[in-house]
Amino acid sequence: MMNTQSFFSIAGQFKAVFLDSYGVLKNHRGLIDGVKQTIDFIRERGIALRILTNDASRSQHEQYLVFQRLGLTSIQEEEIITSGMLAKQYLQHKVKNGRIAYLGTESAASYILESGNFSVPAREVDLEHADGIDAFVFLDDEGFDWNSDINTTVNLLRRKTMPVIVANSDKLYPVSKNDVALATGSVAQLVESILNRSFIHFGKPDSQMFMYAFDHLNRDGQYDKDDILMVGDTLHTDILGGNKFGLKTTLVLSGNTSSRNADLLINATGIIPDYICDSIVG
Amino acid sequence: MMNTQSFFSIAGQFKAVFLDSYGVLKNHRGLIDGVKQTIDFIRERGIALRILTNDASRSQHEQYLVFQRLGLTSIQEEEIITSGMLAKQYLQHKVKNGRIAYLGTESAASYILESGNFSVPAREVDLEHADGIDAFVFLDDEGFDWNSDINTTVNLLRRKTMPVIVANSDKLYPVSKNDVALATGSVAQLVESILNRSFIHFGKPDSQMFMYAFDHLNRDGQYDKDDILMVGDTLHTDILGGNKFGLKTTLVLSGNTSSRNADLLINATGIIPDYICDSIVG
Amino acid sequence: MMNTQSFFSIAGQFKAVFLDSYGVLKNHRGLIDGVKQTIDFIRERGIALRILTNDASRSQHEQYLVFQRLGLTSIQEEEIITSGMLAKQYLQHKVKNGRIAYLGTESAASYILESGNFSVPAREVDLEHADGIDAFVFLDDEGFDWNSDINTTVNLLRRKTMPVIVANSDKLYPVSKNDVALATGSVAQLVESILNRSFIHFGKPDSQMFMYAFDHLNRDGQYDKDDILMVGDTLHTDILGGNKFGLKTTLVLSGNTSSRNADLLINATGIIPDYICDSIVG
Amino acid sequence: MMNTQSFFSIAGQFKAVFLDSYGVLKNHRGLIDGVKQTIDFIRERGIALRILTNDASRSQHEQYLVFQRLGLTSIQEEEIITSGMLAKQYLQHKVKNGRIAYLGTESAASYILESGNFSVPAREVDLEHADGIDAFVFLDDEGFDWNSDINTTVNLLRRKTMPVIVANSDKLYPVSKNDVALATGSVAQLVESILNRSFIHFGKPDSQMFMYAFDHLNRDGQYDKDDILMVGDTLHTDILGGNKFGLKTTLVLSGNTSSRNADLLINATGIIPDYICDSIVG
Repeated sequence: MMNTQSFFSIAGQFKAVFLDSYGVLKNHRGLIDGVKQTIDFIRERGIALRILTNDASRSQHEQYLVFQRLGLTSIQEEEIITSGMLAKQYLQHKVKNGRIAYLGTESAASYILESGNFSVPAREVDLEHADGIDAFVFLDDEGFDWNSDINTTVNLLRRKTMPVIVANSDKLYPVSKNDVALATGSVAQLVESILNRSFIHFGKPDSQMFMYAFDHLNRDGQYDKDDILMVGDTLHTDILGGNKFGLKTTLVLSGNTSSRNADLLINATGIIPDYICDSIVG
Repeated sequence: MMNTQSFFSIAGQFKAVFLDSYGVLKNHRGLIDGVKQTIDFIRERGIALRILTNDASRSQHEQYLVFQRLGLTSIQEEEIITSGMLAKQYLQHKVKNGRIAYLGTESAASYILESGNFSVPAREVDLEHADGIDAFVFLDDEGFDWNSDINTTVNLLRRKTMPVIVANSDKLYPVSKNDVALATGSVAQLVESILNRSFIHFGKPDSQMFMYAFDHLNRDGQYDKDDILMVGDTLHTDILGGNKFGLKTTLVLSGNTSSRNADLLINATGIIPDYICDSIVG
Repeated sequence: MMNTQSFFSIAGQFKAVFLDSYGVLKNHRGLIDGVKQTIDFIRERGIALRILTNDASRSQHEQYLVFQRLGLTSIQEEEIITSGMLAKQYLQHKVKNGRIAYLGTESAASYILESGNFSVPAREVDLEHADGIDAFVFLDDEGFDWNSDINTTVNLLRRKTMPVIVANSDKLYPVSKNDVALATGSVAQLVESILNRSFIHFGKPDSQMFMYAFDHLNRDGQYDKDDILMVGDTLHTDILGGNKFGLKTTLVLSGNTSSRNADLLINATGIIPDYICDSIVG
Repeated sequence: MMNTQSFFSIAGQFKAVFLDSYGVLKNHRGLIDGVKQTIDFIRERGIALRILTNDASRSQHEQYLVFQRLGLTSIQEEEIITSGMLAKQYLQHKVKNGRIAYLGTESAASYILESGNFSVPAREVDLEHADGIDAFVFLDDEGFDWNSDINTTVNLLRRKTMPVIVANSDKLYPVSKNDVALATGSVAQLVESILNRSFIHFGKPDSQMFMYAFDHLNRDGQYDKDDILMVGDTLHTDILGGNKFGLKTTLVLSGNTSSRNADLLINATGIIPDYICDSIVG
């Protein structure tokens, strides 16, 4: 069992906190008890806040509405940074007036892909005209039929070399206390392994989200990396990414990592948080 | 372009040939033209023959019936060795009066799993009673719903440690001249990677099939490894497996490996056949 | 902590036992206390015995002399099977009158490579005449200079495609109670990863050694796989290899796997022995 | 063969260029012919310049002196960004008053590790006092004995969990027209694979260097990502890293990638540069 610390006493030492969403603010049952008070504490202390989520299925605005509905009414739309936003920026830079094929939901496609480009779900790709497709994006684990559309994806990418983007690199997400479901990152990894290729990944641990949040923060003030605490429940994404970016990191035990296996996982992976807290509550 | 040799002139130097099935005897359109004459040549010369196929979906008898229907009437049931047969033998040895969960078709389950054991399709597994399952088998890429049953598999194997068998390690199979479909081996590899585990694989390049064929051959006569030629269309399964087992190997260009990319693939992989032929015809 | 069983009560149920050497019969201090009595027990009961060792540095005869010196005088030379013996057989089959370059000691090279072939240590390879080399073998982690000869190996294999054999696939070996040293398998894996290739590996878990031992056993009697117990201290080699070959397996806690981490490793890897014993003593 | 473009016509469209050093400005024989004129062209056009090098063996100042000696006298010290600089920054943030063990040269250790910390070469690590070490850094492929110090590293990291930094992720570097040598990244990867861990990597393709160069550039002016061209000779580092960061990318054929294999490598890896030039000359 770990010796954990009080989140308030740690957060109080920083000028800004970056919070992961799932496993930190909410879980499969909804908002984690007491989180509202923590957000109030952060606001009262004047600590800047950003939420960094590996979720590409919902736009910044939709995420904002979810937090409103859950009662976190002080959270502003621009405080939320999603991996989908960054995939969108990338595609706007690197593909123009192109056709982008995807695996995912139509709503994710409409917000991420359709800014100057056209989107085509994998199931509608005509392999005989693979040349008409300019890029491919793994958006979400839902919105397509795994039985057929992964095969279409593999064949498209065998027929034409094109940039391939993974908008959310998470491998698994929890669906109940004990069980998980495969996330977009797992589907992308399967295709990478089949093709022996490496795609371009967005989402923690990659640093694009940290960079975006850091730059955004510095528009309103002056923050060094030493001033910022990254808080998350997953060693491989939140803590590794925060460590690599040079932030102090706090692992919370309210999500993917439990007090039962935290020590073991830290030793096995060598990914070491600066602090460990039971949750961001109290 | 490769300099290829005549298959007859090579095969004539051996006392036995081991033939892969798909890409050597048949392809997605049916029997390859001229294969019947090659089998006749092998019989006339008194060369012993075994067919080694990484197919777990059909029993030895069903494979036999397929060859009969295709006109290869001289092929005997016991000359056919399938990876499914060997998975079956293994399960009979290592699991007894147990419950074996699987991904695949009901018919594959009935011939492979049900000799002294009970079989349960993944979709019927009750995760709350994971303890009641004794082993898991990846049988086929069909017969289940990829959207839900892969998740059930991952959760079952997270809840209980049990032997996991992959009855067919092939990653892809051709469905047309240009296109492929993911095979059982790809699904198994996805789950292995998610769980960071290695399962027990049957099928070439693993040596169980070569060993079985070699032992079976030596019941009727006396054959050294030097007397046997392994013939296949895939470097990673047929040629690597044959080389590892110590047989001479022939790559044919009538399936997965084309004359266009054979040189490149041999250099990239370092898997070197002793001979290369356009096909087993002529 | 595991509930372990008495080795004698388990071994007594079998017609033959296959024993790993290092971690089972001996360790870095020499013969494990009480092993002599266990070998006597096996002889008295008329249980057939084979020793399967992933050691390519010493010939069968040199291994035999080691056991004699350690006091295991009943062990016969032909009861010992080394991965080096099998690499030697393979090279005799697949390379003839060729030049084989190697990393390892001169004495290992002389017994493994020089039967119808010439051997060249990596440090003497002339890269400008790479075409003169017909095969490459990773023999041992000693006998060469890591600072220079690994680079020569990489450059040789970049210049010419040739069969590459790994005579001992072990990654690590223990040098004291707490510490390890990189073994041949680690060096080979480094080069495989640099070149993005897969070499031909000998040694457990690959089945060549099991096959050889099984065939050899059946010259003197009739043994089914059910009649044989594989005993080893390493999950990834002894137990995985024994399981794959279809033998019953016993993990002993006198070597690489300790009573402290056995449960954890079995759960993490999913490699499940049929039995667990503290050691082969008692 | 590729259709390549003139570097001047491409660079002329951008406000800033990021240049890799080895394979772009110089090669194993020294400065590439004509590079001086290219730097003059860049200066005349008022295009901003940064040099991004995966070299941790020399400090920014030492790199500056090398360019002076080679005749590139207009290059300023602060225009050079090395992966070692960023590893140094990271260690200053995350380790304080600690002892950092390393593999590499003493001079690299003195500039990277000794700012508020003490450095200990791997060969001097006392494994019995592993607790006294706070972090480990892979600095360089020289300055240590591969025969013994890699083993010490493995044993240290088995005994104590600590942050591990790879200051240069390159796997290979060219030593002549045909041959290569293993670089720091290969040694680190060997140890990662032995320990089944992932270390923290600095150097392209990771985005820390791009981020640093981008931020540094924007101190003097206003540059969007669209205004910047990344130029390099290696797909996996320069082009992948530039693409991920959202820059336009140019592959040059004067280093690791030749006109002979560029097409093949682009198709095999799916890493697609926006432009291809023979070199930065002309």
